[in-house]
Amino acid sequence: MAVAVEPDARLKAFYERVERQSLRPLWLNTSVNASEPTGEVLPWLWPWKQMRANMYEACEVMPVGRDGADRRVLTMRNPTLPASNHGSSRTLLAAMQLVKPGEQAPSHRHTMAALRYIIEGQGGYTIVNGQPLTMEPGDFVLTPSWCWHGHAHEGPENMVWMDVLDVPLVRGLNWQFYEEYSEPKTLQPADKPRDDSLRRFGTGSLLPHWMGRQDAPYSPLFAYKFPATKEALYRLTDYSASPTEGYALTFSNPFTGGPVMPTISASMHLLTAGLHTQAKRNMTNTLYHVAQGRGHSVLNGQRFDWEQDDTFVVPTWCWQEHAADGGDAILFAASDAPVLQALALYREETYATDGGHQPATSTFTPAS
Amino acid sequence: MAVAVEPDARLKAFYERVERQSLRPLWLNTSVNASEPTGEVLPWLWPWKQMRANMYEACEVMPVGRDGADRRVLTMRNPTLPASNHGSSRTLLAAMQLVKPGEQAPSHRHTMAALRYIIEGQGGYTIVNGQPLTMEPGDFVLTPSWCWHGHAHEGPENMVWMDVLDVPLVRGLNWQFYEEYSEPKTLQPADKPRDDSLRRFGTGSLLPHWMGRQDAPYSPLFAYKFPATKEALYRLTDYSASPTEGYALTFSNPFTGGPVMPTISASMHLLTAGLHTQAKRNMTNTLYHVAQGRGHSVLNGQRFDWEQDDTFVVPTWCWQEHAADGGDAILFAASDAPVLQALALYREETYATDGGHQPATSTFTPAS
Amino acid sequence: MAVAVEPDARLKAFYERVERQSLRPLWLNTSVNASEPTGEVLPWLWPWKQMRANMYEACEVMPVGRDGADRRVLTMRNPTLPASNHGSSRTLLAAMQLVKPGEQAPSHRHTMAALRYIIEGQGGYTIVNGQPLTMEPGDFVLTPSWCWHGHAHEGPENMVWMDVLDVPLVRGLNWQFYEEYSEPKTLQPADKPRDDSLRRFGTGSLLPHWMGRQDAPYSPLFAYKFPATKEALYRLTDYSASPTEGYALTFSNPFTGGPVMPTISASMHLLTAGLHTQAKRNMTNTLYHVAQGRGHSVLNGQRFDWEQDDTFVVPTWCWQEHAADGGDAILFAASDAPVLQALALYREETYATDGGHQPATSTFTPAS
Amino acid sequence: MAVAVEPDARLKAFYERVERQSLRPLWLNTSVNASEPTGEVLPWLWPWKQMRANMYEACEVMPVGRDGADRRVLTMRNPTLPASNHGSSRTLLAAMQLVKPGEQAPSHRHTMAALRYIIEGQGGYTIVNGQPLTMEPGDFVLTPSWCWHGHAHEGPENMVWMDVLDVPLVRGLNWQFYEEYSEPKTLQPADKPRDDSLRRFGTGSLLPHWMGRQDAPYSPLFAYKFPATKEALYRLTDYSASPTEGYALTFSNPFTGGPVMPTISASMHLLTAGLHTQAKRNMTNTLYHVAQGRGHSVLNGQRFDWEQDDTFVVPTWCWQEHAADGGDAILFAASDAPVLQALALYREETYATDGGHQPATSTFTPAS
Repeated sequence: MAVAVEPDARLKAFYERVERQSLRPLWLNTSVNASEPTGEVLPWLWPWKQMRANMYEACEVMPVGRDGADRRVLTMRNPTLPASNHGSSRTLLAAMQLVKPGEQAPSHRHTMAALRYIIEGQGGYTIVNGQPLTMEPGDFVLTPSWCWHGHAHEGPENMVWMDVLDVPLVRGLNWQFYEEYSEPKTLQPADKPRDDSLRRFGTGSLLPHWMGRQDAPYSPLFAYKFPATKEALYRLTDYSASPTEGYALTFSNPFTGGPVMPTISASMHLLTAGLHTQAKRNMTNTLYHVAQGRGHSVLNGQRFDWEQDDTFVVPTWCWQEHAADGGDAILFAASDAPVLQALALYREETYATDGGHQPATSTFTPAS
Repeated sequence: MAVAVEPDARLKAFYERVERQSLRPLWLNTSVNASEPTGEVLPWLWPWKQMRANMYEACEVMPVGRDGADRRVLTMRNPTLPASNHGSSRTLLAAMQLVKPGEQAPSHRHTMAALRYIIEGQGGYTIVNGQPLTMEPGDFVLTPSWCWHGHAHEGPENMVWMDVLDVPLVRGLNWQFYEEYSEPKTLQPADKPRDDSLRRFGTGSLLPHWMGRQDAPYSPLFAYKFPATKEALYRLTDYSASPTEGYALTFSNPFTGGPVMPTISASMHLLTAGLHTQAKRNMTNTLYHVAQGRGHSVLNGQRFDWEQDDTFVVPTWCWQEHAADGGDAILFAASDAPVLQALALYREETYATDGGHQPATSTFTPAS
Repeated sequence: MAVAVEPDARLKAFYERVERQSLRPLWLNTSVNASEPTGEVLPWLWPWKQMRANMYEACEVMPVGRDGADRRVLTMRNPTLPASNHGSSRTLLAAMQLVKPGEQAPSHRHTMAALRYIIEGQGGYTIVNGQPLTMEPGDFVLTPSWCWHGHAHEGPENMVWMDVLDVPLVRGLNWQFYEEYSEPKTLQPADKPRDDSLRRFGTGSLLPHWMGRQDAPYSPLFAYKFPATKEALYRLTDYSASPTEGYALTFSNPFTGGPVMPTISASMHLLTAGLHTQAKRNMTNTLYHVAQGRGHSVLNGQRFDWEQDDTFVVPTWCWQEHAADGGDAILFAASDAPVLQALALYREETYATDGGHQPATSTFTPAS
Repeated sequence: MAVAVEPDARLKAFYERVERQSLRPLWLNTSVNASEPTGEVLPWLWPWKQMRANMYEACEVMPVGRDGADRRVLTMRNPTLPASNHGSSRTLLAAMQLVKPGEQAPSHRHTMAALRYIIEGQGGYTIVNGQPLTMEPGDFVLTPSWCWHGHAHEGPENMVWMDVLDVPLVRGLNWQFYEEYSEPKTLQPADKPRDDSLRRFGTGSLLPHWMGRQDAPYSPLFAYKFPATKEALYRLTDYSASPTEGYALTFSNPFTGGPVMPTISASMHLLTAGLHTQAKRNMTNTLYHVAQGRGHSVLNGQRFDWEQDDTFVVPTWCWQEHAADGGDAILFAASDAPVLQALALYREETYATDGGHQPATSTFTPAS
């Protein structure tokens, strides 16, 4: 619909007037009708080695509390996004957080939802709405929209985890609310037993209804533990893997079968040794974190090699295939699938040619 | 609204005519408006000792296959029900089934839904829609409406289980369909792996969506194992028990959070040693089977003593309270709660006086 | 599974003992496994001419209030039902009610749901939960489960309407509660404007959410008016009719798209002149009332001729086809479809042979 | 959490490195935690007089078809939005479209959803998925996500309507797909009767289920006619108006009671003469179009005077109150409420002080 306009004098006056009156001729918009998602935002990868080194250096150069900083966090900013978007993708932001022994992150709440995937350390916990949730490597913890949350760490070594938030979506639409728990900032005291929700709802298909039906729009579990997840994944390996997913489990809300939160879903994918999935693309923005093993992905024809605890992002409508190189690999994934489902915009496609595999014409190299 | 009618001649002629024309004066109906459920159907108890002795004798007097009988089953017929209802309550029927080593119950299907609670024996299994499900004491297995099912037993000793069916409801409303799997009757071959559904869906809050969303109106699990249930129950004992329920878990469909089948829900109740629940009543018909321990219940003011593997039924709107005598007791319960919920007829009440306890004015004694 | 049992002495003792112990050998049950609904309950028809004459005579022989009768009602008792069921079908009861000018039926409520289809008269109204609802011929009014309702009549001539209730279902399962509005019995005063719900919700797809979301399990409309229904039916006549339904509209709850009540759905069927539907059968029990015209139905091979204001019932799994003889005919229908849907037991079938038409081998003749 | 950082050499090197590695220290983000929506985007108003003059001039300076422009559209661009957002609010775009007699807008489809509110002209229609929908002033027509749609105009005078689209939301998140119906561009032929969906589903609570249950995520109606809406609004005027809404009707999907489309809801608000609503604010972005009358709104303390066919936008969390000046006024509203509901982010607030009225400290003056 591009129009090469001949700006004669009358037309020029018209354009000037409507601009002044906050109107825009649609016919001047040359980019309006992309036949599909543009692909301008590229997949990206953040190597754990860099990330970890940066986090440890951050401990030295920027102690928590210095000049008011509550949390020692580096966000993964996808440089191919528009400047106004500080996320890893258009809807989701990944970040890395380090808490030193004895430190606390004071409690607050916000309409932005988050989950925390634990990478290293023992002895840390998150207090969500008064409930302390143990954080151990491979687990993830929910801090849903508008739930109070703060972190504490009583173990002997640093805790590091990945945060995933829907900040680009919610703040991008100006729907953020934010509140400190107290002034001066403190950690909310625990008024529920440690890992209370797991004891109550931990066996998903056995519901203690007498404890009160959970009608919140998020999973009553608040935390999902890695050992159980891993066991469930390996229970599936007697079956054929999904050609495009490997062995995949979606974490669900036991009261509804739905996603863990209304804006973020989480899943875990086992790629057994040598498995190389066929390419697919869908509408979601998906963040992957390598929970175990090493391998590579081909994303829109570009090869991304990854190893344990690397993080990478696959944007909307980007072809993706994943391979375990060496032994088994496990990928944790967080995506905006629930948003697409709720708005009836979800679609997906499989790669029909060449046995489902894209030619990899380049390799992603992280800047050093 | 009872009316003492003076049948003068004209009125008599009127009554005769409308009767002939298949009409009935409502004003002659003296029982039409009971202010609440009538209480004519009484709670009942079937002692395991009797039941077991009868089942073993049935092995001798009535072998399976003799004169065409497929299944060696004694149904628990509540004698206080109207003659046309062969159930244990108005909607549910409990029965006891014994399968000897090497026997099979050939496959069939019917619109009546059933579950099987396993009491004793090892080595038996039910094949539901081609999937063999291992049956071990304390487990229960679903055979939902219109699913093919048959039983086989390859262990060394007799298997005994309790059947719970919605026969009085579904057949009472003439909604039964029934079909043999084959002629001559055979067991449906297994075309799915043993305990397939448990491997797929056994961790209720980790759903392998890639294996296909289960949209059936019943739980994709088909079986619930006792060890996991017991562990989940005891995980709750750090909390205060529900005054009217003890520690209670409702078995749920992990895809919906709803009941295991549209007409029957199942739950497990732990009464810790010395616990005596306060009285409540609700609209359901509930069958209880003593999974473990001994104790007693007070049902509409009558005391029912029970021990392991006894079965008792609590009809609609009957006051009920339960107590563990000796150590911990565990009760398995199956009820028609989903029917009441679906028809928006559910209601419940707690016993407000005397600390929530009814006076027990009599004791139930089973006929010998 | 019929078993010809040889009652030797030991077996006889066994049978006597288990009978005493409230147990029944399943193998003695020779009728247990009907391959489909039995067909023992037959379709039936109540001619309006008889009904009307009886109602008018009832005015003379049995005045309302005589000996305590609140309501002048003749119920249509299907004589092929088991004696314990006083309904027109296993789940639904139709009845005819006449209210003379100036009479009132005092308010009460019960868990049984009802609807009233108006046949003749002007000036009557039902007060449901304080709202007076105008009753005009062709309209129907809901009195859902546990809603207060009473009737009054301020017009110059008798009002007659058909009641449809789920009494056989709800009382049959002993789920009835009943309460008088006051003692002595009175009509509940109107505390809402006349036809309030129609003014609020009468345009189904324009919802005044600011007036409060209606979360009741029944339609917020409470009444559906015949002129709008008829107009909507005729709007469909530019289309081809459904081969098995004619032109059919299901009355719905505008907040959910679901049925008007959880146990009873209502629909209106236009058979244009000469239209003869093809045979189908389904699981519902359906009551038909001839809103307009005359015609006939073939029900399980028997011909039923009908004219305006006749009532007939089609039981579960009975083949049915309907024809307008003369001009257009309109049938009002009420069924238990929501129960079958909720319990996942609904099924239907069309008649595959002979162009979809059954041979009619007999004709139903009402007793005079 | 603002931090005045002292950039010593080591810190500077750290910052440079992490920037290179696509990481960002969260502690440098000084604006991260707005306590509520920022209010940077302001309400805006586009006067119909200007709009209409511009549209008519556009007919002369930019004929449809010149240089490829399909549609003669001026979009209402809120100048207080970030430059990357071309909308009227963060999620919704309003535009004005003029079609001259005999013109057509060829058919296409896109994942962006739209509705058209008709302002002037007779004889135009939109073909949606093969169905021609008559467009008359005060009506609105849906063109849901991914439905084919084109416009034609066979009347004697220009048609003008307002388009409302979710372009800023859907394209902002890169979820757009777009497809032409044919090449060369043509109007999709009508293969359904004119106003088919209205004939089928026009009486919202009478559903022709036999025509096929509509399981699409949008209303099966596709069009809502003004006369019926107006009548329904005035039927409510016997009641007290909502203090914050006046008399308000939400257009709904008769199959679900939900919004007309998953991303846009529509409602109509009657402010009777002299009515001045109390202030409220909520999370939605709402576009108002003056369907009838004149009045003014106070939006975050600024007065906006409006008259018939003016359009104004109220962004997220902006206080709003509306008053009819002179006679009755009717406002058509389209908002992103379904998105907020789906993501569980909706909240609202009423203005507690000063009788619910904000002081109006300034007046909005459109640029000329």
